[in-house]
Amino acid sequence: MINVGVLGATGAVGQRFVQLLAEHPWFNLTTLTASERSAGKKYRDVVKWRLDVPFPDNIGDIRVSPTNVASLKEVDLVFSALPAEIAKDVETACANGGLAVCSNASSHRMEPDIPLVVPEVNPDHLALIDVQRDHGRDGFIVTNPNCSTIVMTLALAPVRGCSFQKIHVATMQAVSGAGFEGVPAMGIYDNVIPYIGQEEQKMETETIKIMGTFRNNAVQPAPFQVSASCHRVPVLDGHTMAIWLDAREPVEKVKEAFLRYKPPIEGLPTQPKESVHFFDEPDRPQPRLDRNRGNGMTVSVGRLREGIRFIAMGHNTIRGAAGASVLNAELISSRKYL
Amino acid sequence: MINVGVLGATGAVGQRFVQLLAEHPWFNLTTLTASERSAGKKYRDVVKWRLDVPFPDNIGDIRVSPTNVASLKEVDLVFSALPAEIAKDVETACANGGLAVCSNASSHRMEPDIPLVVPEVNPDHLALIDVQRDHGRDGFIVTNPNCSTIVMTLALAPVRGCSFQKIHVATMQAVSGAGFEGVPAMGIYDNVIPYIGQEEQKMETETIKIMGTFRNNAVQPAPFQVSASCHRVPVLDGHTMAIWLDAREPVEKVKEAFLRYKPPIEGLPTQPKESVHFFDEPDRPQPRLDRNRGNGMTVSVGRLREGIRFIAMGHNTIRGAAGASVLNAELISSRKYL
Amino acid sequence: MINVGVLGATGAVGQRFVQLLAEHPWFNLTTLTASERSAGKKYRDVVKWRLDVPFPDNIGDIRVSPTNVASLKEVDLVFSALPAEIAKDVETACANGGLAVCSNASSHRMEPDIPLVVPEVNPDHLALIDVQRDHGRDGFIVTNPNCSTIVMTLALAPVRGCSFQKIHVATMQAVSGAGFEGVPAMGIYDNVIPYIGQEEQKMETETIKIMGTFRNNAVQPAPFQVSASCHRVPVLDGHTMAIWLDAREPVEKVKEAFLRYKPPIEGLPTQPKESVHFFDEPDRPQPRLDRNRGNGMTVSVGRLREGIRFIAMGHNTIRGAAGASVLNAELISSRKYL
Amino acid sequence: MINVGVLGATGAVGQRFVQLLAEHPWFNLTTLTASERSAGKKYRDVVKWRLDVPFPDNIGDIRVSPTNVASLKEVDLVFSALPAEIAKDVETACANGGLAVCSNASSHRMEPDIPLVVPEVNPDHLALIDVQRDHGRDGFIVTNPNCSTIVMTLALAPVRGCSFQKIHVATMQAVSGAGFEGVPAMGIYDNVIPYIGQEEQKMETETIKIMGTFRNNAVQPAPFQVSASCHRVPVLDGHTMAIWLDAREPVEKVKEAFLRYKPPIEGLPTQPKESVHFFDEPDRPQPRLDRNRGNGMTVSVGRLREGIRFIAMGHNTIRGAAGASVLNAELISSRKYL
Repeated sequence: MINVGVLGATGAVGQRFVQLLAEHPWFNLTTLTASERSAGKKYRDVVKWRLDVPFPDNIGDIRVSPTNVASLKEVDLVFSALPAEIAKDVETACANGGLAVCSNASSHRMEPDIPLVVPEVNPDHLALIDVQRDHGRDGFIVTNPNCSTIVMTLALAPVRGCSFQKIHVATMQAVSGAGFEGVPAMGIYDNVIPYIGQEEQKMETETIKIMGTFRNNAVQPAPFQVSASCHRVPVLDGHTMAIWLDAREPVEKVKEAFLRYKPPIEGLPTQPKESVHFFDEPDRPQPRLDRNRGNGMTVSVGRLREGIRFIAMGHNTIRGAAGASVLNAELISSRKYL
Repeated sequence: MINVGVLGATGAVGQRFVQLLAEHPWFNLTTLTASERSAGKKYRDVVKWRLDVPFPDNIGDIRVSPTNVASLKEVDLVFSALPAEIAKDVETACANGGLAVCSNASSHRMEPDIPLVVPEVNPDHLALIDVQRDHGRDGFIVTNPNCSTIVMTLALAPVRGCSFQKIHVATMQAVSGAGFEGVPAMGIYDNVIPYIGQEEQKMETETIKIMGTFRNNAVQPAPFQVSASCHRVPVLDGHTMAIWLDAREPVEKVKEAFLRYKPPIEGLPTQPKESVHFFDEPDRPQPRLDRNRGNGMTVSVGRLREGIRFIAMGHNTIRGAAGASVLNAELISSRKYL
Repeated sequence: MINVGVLGATGAVGQRFVQLLAEHPWFNLTTLTASERSAGKKYRDVVKWRLDVPFPDNIGDIRVSPTNVASLKEVDLVFSALPAEIAKDVETACANGGLAVCSNASSHRMEPDIPLVVPEVNPDHLALIDVQRDHGRDGFIVTNPNCSTIVMTLALAPVRGCSFQKIHVATMQAVSGAGFEGVPAMGIYDNVIPYIGQEEQKMETETIKIMGTFRNNAVQPAPFQVSASCHRVPVLDGHTMAIWLDAREPVEKVKEAFLRYKPPIEGLPTQPKESVHFFDEPDRPQPRLDRNRGNGMTVSVGRLREGIRFIAMGHNTIRGAAGASVLNAELISSRKYL
Repeated sequence: MINVGVLGATGAVGQRFVQLLAEHPWFNLTTLTASERSAGKKYRDVVKWRLDVPFPDNIGDIRVSPTNVASLKEVDLVFSALPAEIAKDVETACANGGLAVCSNASSHRMEPDIPLVVPEVNPDHLALIDVQRDHGRDGFIVTNPNCSTIVMTLALAPVRGCSFQKIHVATMQAVSGAGFEGVPAMGIYDNVIPYIGQEEQKMETETIKIMGTFRNNAVQPAPFQVSASCHRVPVLDGHTMAIWLDAREPVEKVKEAFLRYKPPIEGLPTQPKESVHFFDEPDRPQPRLDRNRGNGMTVSVGRLREGIRFIAMGHNTIRGAAGASVLNAELISSRKYL
């Protein structure tokens, strides 16, 4: 068992980390950090548990630590659910201090020597860990992408061989992506908000890095463009997106690619049976019915049509955030980087 | 004053027609039709009024007639809110019987001698009325497009000079588009349904006809393609859509086109002050805040970005259905076709 | 293992029965009935599965039978998810034909010789089975109450000793109570519908029977009144209700009663660890967070205040319908009535 | 024309004040206050307008002042949309400085010499203004009740002669009651929150004061009790409530009282044609369909049943807040207190 901690354990993504790690077969959750004013108190007394799964009682008695490197003496690996502006320095300090950091924050994603990884898509990019070590770091940082980008890149993994040059993608994103307090009911109820700050830019740049090629100790960007339009809709969990490849392949061949897809990893505890589920039904996937498939780790695709265009959907706070980080940690562990 | 009637006056679109015609300055609403079992009863006793505006008392005492030509002796013009499968024959019979028919149904939209008109976009297509008359009809049929198509073509009107060849459009459509009973709460609440039967095909074909050129007594299709992906979201009224032109023009020039736009019609009672409103705010338009602009007849656009891409939104049962038909009737009337 | 069937297996409650019985330790689900036009087809091909849990593959190949006694030769016990108007005759025929019938329908609930049972509340009322047998029936019918009544009677069970004479109850009920197609989105979204047909009457009469005393081979009605006001709110699953006892007992004593409550049954597979969970938090229970407690079988109470007044909430299609019937069947089975 | 100001003009209730006063026939809106950091800027530049009616352009150029007495030199009457904790001192200072204050805040409502008024219910309580003046104040404060209390007391006004002693009331309240940012979508979507801080206490105490009798220069409390249970539901605007009188009068007589009701005021600009609208339809009132009746100033009642019990519903930010204050000001003005 590897001792692990969670930075920022009381927020929406932090709670998901705690849920996923409370009974993890490889990781032993020993440390939870939060703001100064919670430090020293029991987790059960400072967290306002807002998930619709029961509070994990075995974690409740852990005393919360302040968010800094000194709090992490017991652990070898730390998950970061910190906001980007705080994450940057804390994560760097942790990595320099010898820790493995699996971060859901955006701060370091686009740095050239930091892997931005979706295990089923680009596990080989973990080689950047060695580049970080060459740069003199004792530990390392591995990041996962933005929630929408994860769903899209997983949906693209089976069809990356198609002849596309520019992807158009329109998202319909859940409110949980903005954190528990992020979207007021008065703002989104009976409404669409056609704007999510920085989201389009993230999808456009992160996708190119993730789907790029590792060569000469660096990631060479993927040879296509992404043009995104991102929108918030009144859905609690689950990001849905319409994707156009404008590829020349016939629909039947693309369908075969989805049905035959096998990811390049296996045996990780958080990995779902199907990383990408293909629907033939005309009206699926739907977030409310399909977001919990594979314990929230499966991305569903459907409505494959001429174009090539299709729909992709995945759980944004599990597959798109905490679950993505945990799966990265499992990959790192299985590949002996720890 | 011109005497008018409404075919199918008790349904969702029918009620909107009654609302818009109850105090119309040019049209005198005298006849309402519905199914056989309602015939002979007062409108107030057969309609289950579901709009959030008060029931128009001056219309309540009209006795409902059965849906056929014989019921329409008093009127010169009739609005059709019939379902497509019933509309086809009834509308044809009306037109052959000398009536002007303004139809919201899809049955006749794509027939070569029937105008498919959005007044601000292609008023000249009304010339097809003469073609119908040449074909021996006493009256005529004029149709308005599908609700999503209306919103999109209005949003395209100011920028039709741009250099686009293929439009990508993703819609986020309101439940009222399916009629009052069309979408169960269990189906759409906390959900997105990524499928609306025939909607994509309608947007792709109707747009090309509307934005085509009238020449040699016929409409020549517009020289571009549309690729649509249509989705239902938990919104009551107002269709929102993300549109990509992939045009070469700079953003500033396209913005100018939106701001300077003047439609080629004027003085019609149902015409809003602004047919297309341009938003500079980063998070607008939003259906709940903006759908009632111009009494529901204004289409709002915003989030103009490199690409060229932008958001368009309009009220689907007013601008996208009943209001569209009434505006068509006003145009017909002002151009002396009656 | 006892072979069982489900009458009306394709509807909303029927699907919940299938979910709960697919892997039941005591019952072997062999027979599913539906309308004539589905008969002979595989369940997977006729059901439109709308639950957010995966379809039970082991049940999918069962061929659906028509809804009548002849279809039930293989089974000893049958669950009825039929609409009331169909249930009356079919259930009677089944019971007369020797079957045990556990019914969620309202048709027979108030008949004097038919038990209306919530296992934790009035298991002794099962003695009416013997009365039915005395009346010459080979089999028997056992019913469970209306969904709201189940939640309320369970919440009352711990405090039935209090000095109340008239209960006031206001419900806030989920849309799933009306079946999948029962409530249009246009009707309930951003809205409250302050009316549910027959619901108040059911709560007022069923409660008095359930909480009555079995004496002299009959149920003597409970000596208090219920005055209900029932309302539909935009919630998918979970009925919430405000209950006033207007009892003299102090709050602390009533709280003790809730905390110490032990139901008079044990060891049934579908019985939750806690039949009634008491919340001290000021803002609980809430349907979205608490409806799945105890796999949907726990009723949650909270906000206990002077008055005595409190809030109760339970999952309406699990605890309030299919799960209630399955628990009744388990009780019947454990008490050797089969 | 009387010059008026609004304290706290940028919040949710403040925006409603601006909407209602922008074109008021008696009041000339000259002054708007907000926090220090907005002071000196144009209203259009500091407000984030969130109503679904257009921004009033004639008000947009007013420069916002800081919230204190010195800012109010131009006005004779000021409306307060301040939060309770700020309102207490500022309103007192304004009244002491000679201003008429119409306040929507709760700070002063229960003070013995301050009228708590709903014009249709207790206009005679304005006589407390003279008591304030006797206490040496140059100006005065008049308050309106909490939003739920206003809806309930108006619904009770026609039936105050009935023989009730204890009222039970269960509310289903809209999210706008908590201000624009008050309720996160993650908290209320697909949910009921059975708790609103202080709301039950306000309904129970304010009602007794409003429906009390003015005698001997003081308000004698009404001779009945109120027991409230308050709940938040996913509705944007409009508080719905179930009310039990447990009165002896027959339903028909109570219905007559509702139908014949005439309020004791007339001719005020914001007063609706009907202060209380009675519905015979079994499923009304409903917030989405009925909240805008009488420009949001009419309270609707319906579902009158044995008991006596019935449903009441009104627009919480218009009738229940800003509109209530404006109507109070009109009453004060018409009764020559200014």
